[in-house]
Amino acid sequence: MRTFEIHRPDEGLRAAIQDRIDNLNKPKGSLGRLEELAMQVCLVQQTLTPSLAHPCHLLLGGDHGIEREGVSLSPREVTWQQMVNFTHGGGGVNMFCRQHGFRLRIVDVGVDYDLSGVPGIISRKIAPGTRNFLYEAAMSEEEMDTAIATGAELADECLAEGCRVLCVGEMGIANTSPSSIWMSLFCGIPLAECVGAGAGLDAPGIRRKYEVLQAAVDGFLQAHARYTVAEVVRYFGGYEMVAAIGAMLRAAERRTLVLVDGFIMTACALAAIRLCPEAQDYMVFCHSGDENGHRRMLEAIGARSLLTLGLRLGEGTGALCAFPLIDSAVRMINEMNTFSHANITKYF
Amino acid sequence: MRTFEIHRPDEGLRAAIQDRIDNLNKPKGSLGRLEELAMQVCLVQQTLTPSLAHPCHLLLGGDHGIEREGVSLSPREVTWQQMVNFTHGGGGVNMFCRQHGFRLRIVDVGVDYDLSGVPGIISRKIAPGTRNFLYEAAMSEEEMDTAIATGAELADECLAEGCRVLCVGEMGIANTSPSSIWMSLFCGIPLAECVGAGAGLDAPGIRRKYEVLQAAVDGFLQAHARYTVAEVVRYFGGYEMVAAIGAMLRAAERRTLVLVDGFIMTACALAAIRLCPEAQDYMVFCHSGDENGHRRMLEAIGARSLLTLGLRLGEGTGALCAFPLIDSAVRMINEMNTFSHANITKYF
Repeated sequence: MRTFEIHRPDEGLRAAIQDRIDNLNKPKGSLGRLEELAMQVCLVQQTLTPSLAHPCHLLLGGDHGIEREGVSLSPREVTWQQMVNFTHGGGGVNMFCRQHGFRLRIVDVGVDYDLSGVPGIISRKIAPGTRNFLYEAAMSEEEMDTAIATGAELADECLAEGCRVLCVGEMGIANTSPSSIWMSLFCGIPLAECVGAGAGLDAPGIRRKYEVLQAAVDGFLQAHARYTVAEVVRYFGGYEMVAAIGAMLRAAERRTLVLVDGFIMTACALAAIRLCPEAQDYMVFCHSGDENGHRRMLEAIGARSLLTLGLRLGEGTGALCAFPLIDSAVRMINEMNTFSHANITKYF
Repeated sequence: MRTFEIHRPDEGLRAAIQDRIDNLNKPKGSLGRLEELAMQVCLVQQTLTPSLAHPCHLLLGGDHGIEREGVSLSPREVTWQQMVNFTHGGGGVNMFCRQHGFRLRIVDVGVDYDLSGVPGIISRKIAPGTRNFLYEAAMSEEEMDTAIATGAELADECLAEGCRVLCVGEMGIANTSPSSIWMSLFCGIPLAECVGAGAGLDAPGIRRKYEVLQAAVDGFLQAHARYTVAEVVRYFGGYEMVAAIGAMLRAAERRTLVLVDGFIMTACALAAIRLCPEAQDYMVFCHSGDENGHRRMLEAIGARSLLTLGLRLGEGTGALCAFPLIDSAVRMINEMNTFSHANITKYF
């Protein structure tokens, strides 16, 4: 696997940033989490005048072998149908991208359908869906390396346009299944507490999903007395998920802010952090949804989400939804007067 | 006091709205609170194609007699200084209004300073600050009537421009004090549980503030074995707060969506709801902050806020901050494809 040289942001500027924030004409700390966000963006960009220019959204699509086991309410053809629908502008992700000025790239990294002739879809297909991890590893080492490299290259393409904030979303029927397994294995939480309803399973459906996934994990653990993070990623991951890890790590390597969406993208962020802990400083956790255990996954890495709106659409919509808050934080430090400039009695 | 004829939105459209939301190409319910918001806006506007055209923000300023008792960390001159600062565009409220396209009206309804010559401040002053409610009612009946009418007229001015969403904010040093008392008396919660740090009091400061406010409430209750909502509003309220009530009620009367800010504006919304319960259907509760008891006040009226970001700046900033979410909800119903239109296997 490609290695990433990620460094935590230099803390040398922290005091100057805090001083600037504390002298804006407002009671100290009164903009709450926006002040924390401003600090993070300033540290990431190593500046007192941060920018969110050219926001980009990578929407990565892929199919999952495990879908054959009936772990998802929706059939796999919904993946390609939605990918095509996104090119027509009518999906949730399109609406949020328009609203917040994100350039959207729709990328096929592993959809089980020939999308090569569809205008508006970037073809970077690694394979037409992963293998079924109930019986074998979802992808080979070479395929995983390619997926990581593909995500990194896509991030580079965004950054080449001047992108200062990268958002990543996914479309992949059944991808809550690998997410739950990653969460369980990377956080040490029993799988039963990591499995949820996905796009709308009922209680028997969740039970069935759990049993399939537990059998898959048991099989993996029997074959791997010891295992690395990369092996877990490869055995269970989808191409869209592994490419997302590559994009996140490359963005962090290039000191770029990353917006992390809900359950699935948080699982990818978790995997990225387990691979390169320094990457976390570049991530904003935007939304925590209803999917069972999402908040516990955030707790495991010491993160809090900005929003809790009960979204469970995926596609990166929860992350896009939080963008105006990050924009507010940046505007705060760039646009608000300081006490001295405003001639106001300083209050605390 | 002027009466308001407020009617709950007609429920006849609910089924059609829900049907529309459920047929957008996403798993049912997967946009969570955005779907609830879409329902509310559609009912308020009685349409399947809602609009948030010409958003307006009323920033109402007033001073408080109770400030003389040392209940606030900041001195009263900060009220007029900030009002002037807002005209220069450097306040928190200015930044949020620019970001979200709100037209800002800065209105002096009761500031203890002559702002009549300041360009950019609308002069609707009722009196230069309220009287000290530790000793007497904050305002007379006539003054209260004028404040309510002033707020209603300001709302009308916004609506005359085509405003479909009205936001109200305040600037008034010491105005968490009357807010705490309103909360206590309107919700039946002991005052000690309603008093918080305001803009940054320490523990002894909060204790002192509580003792002053409890003494004021004791005095009021001794003189009023029975009391009406309007009497509580008049005895303790600030002009900016009573004008806010008038603006909210008038907006509801004219079937216009109202964005409710943090602790102080929630106290005003609470008073408005106690005066006219039907008004609540027109309100979106945007942010719950750290001020002690804010969430309990929301619970008392069965409301949940959209955001919890630890903001405690006032000025309406918490409400403005939530605007993009309401915008997303409206875009969802106006812009997202339906399943039938997108040719996608319907999933649930």
